[in-house]
Amino acid sequence: MSTVYITRRERFNAAHKLWREEWSDEQNEAVFGRCSNKNWHGHNFELFVTVKGKPDEKTGFVIDLKTLSDIIKREIIDHLDHRNLNLDVPFLKGLMASTENVAIKIWERLAPKIAETGGELAKIKLVETENNFVEYYGGKEPF
Amino acid sequence: MSTVYITRRERFNAAHKLWREEWSDEQNEAVFGRCSNKNWHGHNFELFVTVKGKPDEKTGFVIDLKTLSDIIKREIIDHLDHRNLNLDVPFLKGLMASTENVAIKIWERLAPKIAETGGELAKIKLVETENNFVEYYGGKEPF
Amino acid sequence: MSTVYITRRERFNAAHKLWREEWSDEQNEAVFGRCSNKNWHGHNFELFVTVKGKPDEKTGFVIDLKTLSDIIKREIIDHLDHRNLNLDVPFLKGLMASTENVAIKIWERLAPKIAETGGELAKIKLVETENNFVEYYGGKEPF
Amino acid sequence: MSTVYITRRERFNAAHKLWREEWSDEQNEAVFGRCSNKNWHGHNFELFVTVKGKPDEKTGFVIDLKTLSDIIKREIIDHLDHRNLNLDVPFLKGLMASTENVAIKIWERLAPKIAETGGELAKIKLVETENNFVEYYGGKEPF
Amino acid sequence: MSTVYITRRERFNAAHKLWREEWSDEQNEAVFGRCSNKNWHGHNFELFVTVKGKPDEKTGFVIDLKTLSDIIKREIIDHLDHRNLNLDVPFLKGLMASTENVAIKIWERLAPKIAETGGELAKIKLVETENNFVEYYGGKEPF
Amino acid sequence: MSTVYITRRERFNAAHKLWREEWSDEQNEAVFGRCSNKNWHGHNFELFVTVKGKPDEKTGFVIDLKTLSDIIKREIIDHLDHRNLNLDVPFLKGLMASTENVAIKIWERLAPKIAETGGELAKIKLVETENNFVEYYGGKEPF
Repeated sequence: MSTVYITRRERFNAAHKLWREEWSDEQNEAVFGRCSNKNWHGHNFELFVTVKGKPDEKTGFVIDLKTLSDIIKREIIDHLDHRNLNLDVPFLKGLMASTENVAIKIWERLAPKIAETGGELAKIKLVETENNFVEYYGGKEPF
Repeated sequence: MSTVYITRRERFNAAHKLWREEWSDEQNEAVFGRCSNKNWHGHNFELFVTVKGKPDEKTGFVIDLKTLSDIIKREIIDHLDHRNLNLDVPFLKGLMASTENVAIKIWERLAPKIAETGGELAKIKLVETENNFVEYYGGKEPF
Repeated sequence: MSTVYITRRERFNAAHKLWREEWSDEQNEAVFGRCSNKNWHGHNFELFVTVKGKPDEKTGFVIDLKTLSDIIKREIIDHLDHRNLNLDVPFLKGLMASTENVAIKIWERLAPKIAETGGELAKIKLVETENNFVEYYGGKEPF
Repeated sequence: MSTVYITRRERFNAAHKLWREEWSDEQNEAVFGRCSNKNWHGHNFELFVTVKGKPDEKTGFVIDLKTLSDIIKREIIDHLDHRNLNLDVPFLKGLMASTENVAIKIWERLAPKIAETGGELAKIKLVETENNFVEYYGGKEPF
Repeated sequence: MSTVYITRRERFNAAHKLWREEWSDEQNEAVFGRCSNKNWHGHNFELFVTVKGKPDEKTGFVIDLKTLSDIIKREIIDHLDHRNLNLDVPFLKGLMASTENVAIKIWERLAPKIAETGGELAKIKLVETENNFVEYYGGKEPF
Repeated sequence: MSTVYITRRERFNAAHKLWREEWSDEQNEAVFGRCSNKNWHGHNFELFVTVKGKPDEKTGFVIDLKTLSDIIKREIIDHLDHRNLNLDVPFLKGLMASTENVAIKIWERLAPKIAETGGELAKIKLVETENNFVEYYGGKEPF
């Protein structure tokens, strides 16, 4: 049996801003533009979580998608959906809430939980708008 | 020449919450659920603006889409994009920021500006998530 | 306050076939083509349910979308998702399972339940594939 | 049985420009902007054709979608796909090739052919880009 | 000239269930949940087939997309579209019809046919729903 | 900090044809089919540009998306949007305007400009229709 990659999409709607406390308003505005709006803005984020592995001989599954969905919901969506990424999420505290950084944190939180099921996290894709998204392979550089 | 309907889509990313000041936290939570999160959440809103009219004999246009886009940007997007719908938008102040109410306010703001160009606003569609949207025909009930 | 239309999307994945028992195989094949395959085929159906009404003064809601979603799930999705439309669904029994007919039955089942909440069902849109969908306004003919 | 609306999507990829021969280059540029580029530009057009009617008692169909698709392909797609809307299409000759005007011509061409099958054309939706589309109800004004 | 990857999408609508004959109903239900429904369910599957190669100096093509589309239709779509993946497809017989396993079988069937044209199959992506898809690189592990 | 990939989408609407001057009409038709239509056809192209790098410690950015968007617009979109890929674009002159070849040229033009910002271009994805797209990794073969 060969390695297959399986992906589950989940979604969360959150507020955030890009803002450094130690910078002046002007500096924040200069670097982050409209994303630095003091009173926040928000997005419908789409999160794609990819797990790699060989399909199980009995089930044909790389990972049970119900299990994967439950992990993503419990570890990520329940904490980020309808929340403020800067204020409400303990594991994002003190972090510049760029899509890049949030994706890395999501990886760090999901990888061990997926490993517990015998699966291997392979990729996080985090879509902020129809025009912007980031992909993270746990530090690997496939290309 | 016959009446045609033409639609322009614009987008804005905004924060909001559903919250009544005069209600207790428990009441807000009971009625608005996760949408009442104190620290806000947000969405990628899609706004579809439909204008009706007869195509111009020379241009074939019901309305010049560049003109329509400029009106929507100047009147709506510049005020709502990367903003907090509850705090940052004078023409939404004091309004429960439900998608329904925001759509009505968008209509009220756009209709006279479109009329100035000789066009007639026919419909506002405001998409909050891939699962939720509202449509407003200026109070008309086509069905 | 003016009438607004609000729409909730839900999805179900189901098997079906287009087949008349009293017809010969050849006749079924001639009329229904590949859709008459004896061993079934299936689709990811998307169901859009539109409710009309005036936004509530307190909540800004035409209908609470959680309530609407719960009704759709309880009355429709729980019965159709991961089911066979011809065999497994009591309220579709004996019906030619065309998208048209299924949409009408969905209306008949949802309209009274939505009415109980004080809402008014205005439209059912049922999407079978990216190329095919039907819309039903309870028999009204808006155009 | 009640009236249902059924829609079929077909697609065509075509070149066009917005240009009036009797106008100067400057005038064309002033009115049509980038759309007046002399050497053409193009789009992936999406065409949605909606037919209304009561589902047939035997088939459950408002119209056989294979029949509808064949009509659209024969009357429209075969003439417009991979063509130049200004130069290659006899039934668009002399017409300002705006989306509005093309939609009207598509209606005029499809309506009688659909009527021959016993169906009634109800709506044409022609999508030019993800941000622009027109809808035509044969001159009716549902809203 | 450099290696480019080109992808063609085709679609098929099929029924299937996840079910092991040697297991009890309870065991099937416990492992496969709603996907084990005895009377089947179904999906609109999207199949993305990626071929790698250097663009031809004359045509600029890695592979003629008409040729690629014909191969996919002849080898896959004609066998899977409007069929039951468990019952109707000789090359899937005896296979647990998980998306993972179907993707591997599609690869095995397409790879030699594409090789005959001088092309090299690089990836199969099989989308089951908007929330679930698998990717297969012929056993390679790019990340 | 780990390597993250960030992608920006931009769009352009262009005309083109697949045509070799030194070939007869019959030969062009035989090889390129409808894409060889003398009077051109066109597409809504979607261009996805992926940059890899480590998020900046202060901003959390791999690259400022405003900067990336500006580069893409200045170097690519301003030259290709509402243009004829065969006639109007100096850097595509003499090139068979296949999606593969255009993607390579886009890479060649963008890579040095992105490098000037300290970023590293990792991938170009160019979507011609919903059914066809190419991906180019600068000659790398990740799979």
